[in-house]
Amino acid sequence: MTVRHATSRASGPAPIAILTDFGYRDHYVGAMKGVIASIAPGAPLIDITHGVPAQSVMAGAIALAQSWRMFPRRTIFLVVVDPGVGTARLPVAVQTRAGARFVGPDNGVLSLALEEAGPARAVELRTPRYRLARVSATFHGRDIFAPAAAHLWRGVRLGALGPALRDGLTHLELAAAREGVEELRGEVLYVDGFGNLVSNIGRDALARFAARFPAMRLSVRIDAGAPVEIREAYGDARKGAPLATFGSFELLEVAVRDGSAAKRFAAGPGAVVTVWPFRRTARHEP
Amino acid sequence: MTVRHATSRASGPAPIAILTDFGYRDHYVGAMKGVIASIAPGAPLIDITHGVPAQSVMAGAIALAQSWRMFPRRTIFLVVVDPGVGTARLPVAVQTRAGARFVGPDNGVLSLALEEAGPARAVELRTPRYRLARVSATFHGRDIFAPAAAHLWRGVRLGALGPALRDGLTHLELAAAREGVEELRGEVLYVDGFGNLVSNIGRDALARFAARFPAMRLSVRIDAGAPVEIREAYGDARKGAPLATFGSFELLEVAVRDGSAAKRFAAGPGAVVTVWPFRRTARHEP
Amino acid sequence: MTVRHATSRASGPAPIAILTDFGYRDHYVGAMKGVIASIAPGAPLIDITHGVPAQSVMAGAIALAQSWRMFPRRTIFLVVVDPGVGTARLPVAVQTRAGARFVGPDNGVLSLALEEAGPARAVELRTPRYRLARVSATFHGRDIFAPAAAHLWRGVRLGALGPALRDGLTHLELAAAREGVEELRGEVLYVDGFGNLVSNIGRDALARFAARFPAMRLSVRIDAGAPVEIREAYGDARKGAPLATFGSFELLEVAVRDGSAAKRFAAGPGAVVTVWPFRRTARHEP
Repeated sequence: MTVRHATSRASGPAPIAILTDFGYRDHYVGAMKGVIASIAPGAPLIDITHGVPAQSVMAGAIALAQSWRMFPRRTIFLVVVDPGVGTARLPVAVQTRAGARFVGPDNGVLSLALEEAGPARAVELRTPRYRLARVSATFHGRDIFAPAAAHLWRGVRLGALGPALRDGLTHLELAAAREGVEELRGEVLYVDGFGNLVSNIGRDALARFAARFPAMRLSVRIDAGAPVEIREAYGDARKGAPLATFGSFELLEVAVRDGSAAKRFAAGPGAVVTVWPFRRTARHEP
Repeated sequence: MTVRHATSRASGPAPIAILTDFGYRDHYVGAMKGVIASIAPGAPLIDITHGVPAQSVMAGAIALAQSWRMFPRRTIFLVVVDPGVGTARLPVAVQTRAGARFVGPDNGVLSLALEEAGPARAVELRTPRYRLARVSATFHGRDIFAPAAAHLWRGVRLGALGPALRDGLTHLELAAAREGVEELRGEVLYVDGFGNLVSNIGRDALARFAARFPAMRLSVRIDAGAPVEIREAYGDARKGAPLATFGSFELLEVAVRDGSAAKRFAAGPGAVVTVWPFRRTARHEP
Repeated sequence: MTVRHATSRASGPAPIAILTDFGYRDHYVGAMKGVIASIAPGAPLIDITHGVPAQSVMAGAIALAQSWRMFPRRTIFLVVVDPGVGTARLPVAVQTRAGARFVGPDNGVLSLALEEAGPARAVELRTPRYRLARVSATFHGRDIFAPAAAHLWRGVRLGALGPALRDGLTHLELAAAREGVEELRGEVLYVDGFGNLVSNIGRDALARFAARFPAMRLSVRIDAGAPVEIREAYGDARKGAPLATFGSFELLEVAVRDGSAAKRFAAGPGAVVTVWPFRRTARHEP
């Protein structure tokens, strides 16, 4: 997750960027935006996505970690993937050293982005005047998180939203790829809408592994599927053929040109990704 | 539907909030927004949702009734769920006593929100200069409704859009819950994207019924399904377990923790929701 | 595709209108918008759609051709349907005689709109300072196209983005309807989210054909399906009944009232659409 920040060449009010698992069928995202427009008229609203698989904290955390750096430095991220709404998990707002602010439930959905942004200060969203007058037990996105983001945008200080968090923020652990004697073994972290299978194997891990087998090439397998070769771009494979490549996540992913690797390999998050060396032969040369 | 209005603490141009059943596959919503941007550049556009089930006037009416109060007081709601496009149903604009304005077909999709907002004045959208030059028989969202909303936003008076409506506005009747001797019986009004089954049983109706059985607890059933207990929040049930709760609609709904009640009970709009009392026993105490 | 341009009655900054096949599940569109907001804060962003079927250059080209005229004259269209990302196809920006500017891959997705808008000048997006610092092989929407659109919006000249295109722009050929002795034969070009089957038969072609059979009426068939009559509006058919009509595309389409013609006729792009005359009889009169 080494995407560079887009240079900010101009000024203007930072947006509120919204990421949820609310989907697109209901009025839930609209209700949140209505609340923001009521409290902070003129705040630019940008949807990151609302298509995170329902209640998938991990998928939401990855989507946020993959996109936050693209936004202006002072962006407020409003993140609601919240299976524990109405229970003990805390609603929080976090100021980071990178400048960005994050608002959402403290269930790990913020944690991968915060690892990069560097949390500087976190508060629990508890101040009644910065919530809606009536707080439901099921829709904190509307009743607590949207108002907090809107008030922050208007200039309310982080500390005014509630007391400092006593314990640390909840952290999601990403499984690390493991290097064995004859193989590098990781797993599928994320499946995107095209059916691309994104693994936890980064460029560095792959390069280290490859360096041990200088005369050989690498092949990739999903679970017990057929071996797949590593290419520069999706378009380097024939239509309908699988390939492995470093996609926009900067992680090794398995794709099918103009098709879905998730369908082809009947695989999803947690599927095993194995990389191993094989000898270059005339038959395998491009 | 007693959600409180978010306090408007600041001023600025009110948004145009858009709700349709056009879905997300086509350019239809984009074409409407292009028309608005051409007529009223700078108008803030907010999507409520475009995922209303196709041609479902009732689902659109409920989504609108559930969200309009969240928006700034002078918001213009542009609502297009319009199975009768090109036929006798009238295109209308309505000024309400609450301040909000509504633009859409007079087929009932506006009626649940209007009941709350109090219609003060309604006109038929007939003035040619406030429509596109060419009006199709199939896409009044683009040709009639979007231009009307955009012109209203620019300050055109409601009366300039067309003549006052002679007959009343079309009204949707929501089935009321019925209280029997030993049960309270309602029905599913709305199924959301998480598969939550939202009934027509409000807090007051449930409290009245419960008061008749002071020593007992209440159980809820969808059609002939297994009985479900009432909880405070989704998270109070075990993962995969069903529960009943008052969700963000302020109506009794049946949900499955981290799952879909619509799938679990194979139920949709119109399914019977029954509430009945049972004796507290040690086994049932939490 | 003869939709009239919405009259632009007011001024203001033209929007960036975005059309992709990225879908709504992932953060990809959000990442593009973050890049734009970083480079061109304040640029109004309007989604045309992100639901173009994955890698369907033709569907994207049709959606763009059907919507671009609705937008303000100086709109910048950012279009990413790009199955060949990372390969030889060129990233381009095009200034048109109509005023609109288009940014996207030169694979034909722009071509139907450009036919109408009149390309005046086209450049290849090659200038490093107007791309992100690191360009991936899989996500040019974020790394090349979004920055180009944002810089254009800020006032960067088209010529600064890269060298003039040496060869012409790639052109998509739409199959034309063919008139036979006893029938007019076209094909399905586009299937929308309601399941409407939009053909390549325009009003003029149909009128010419009809003029040869003055005493007769016309019937329409999808593949070998049951004959369907031509109506003014969807609502002119009974619920659940099929009809043919000129929809918002200004092309003959086959629909099912409150249903899906794509499902009813099990048909999609490429299905044969046949129009033929039959004698008026009392039984057929409305």
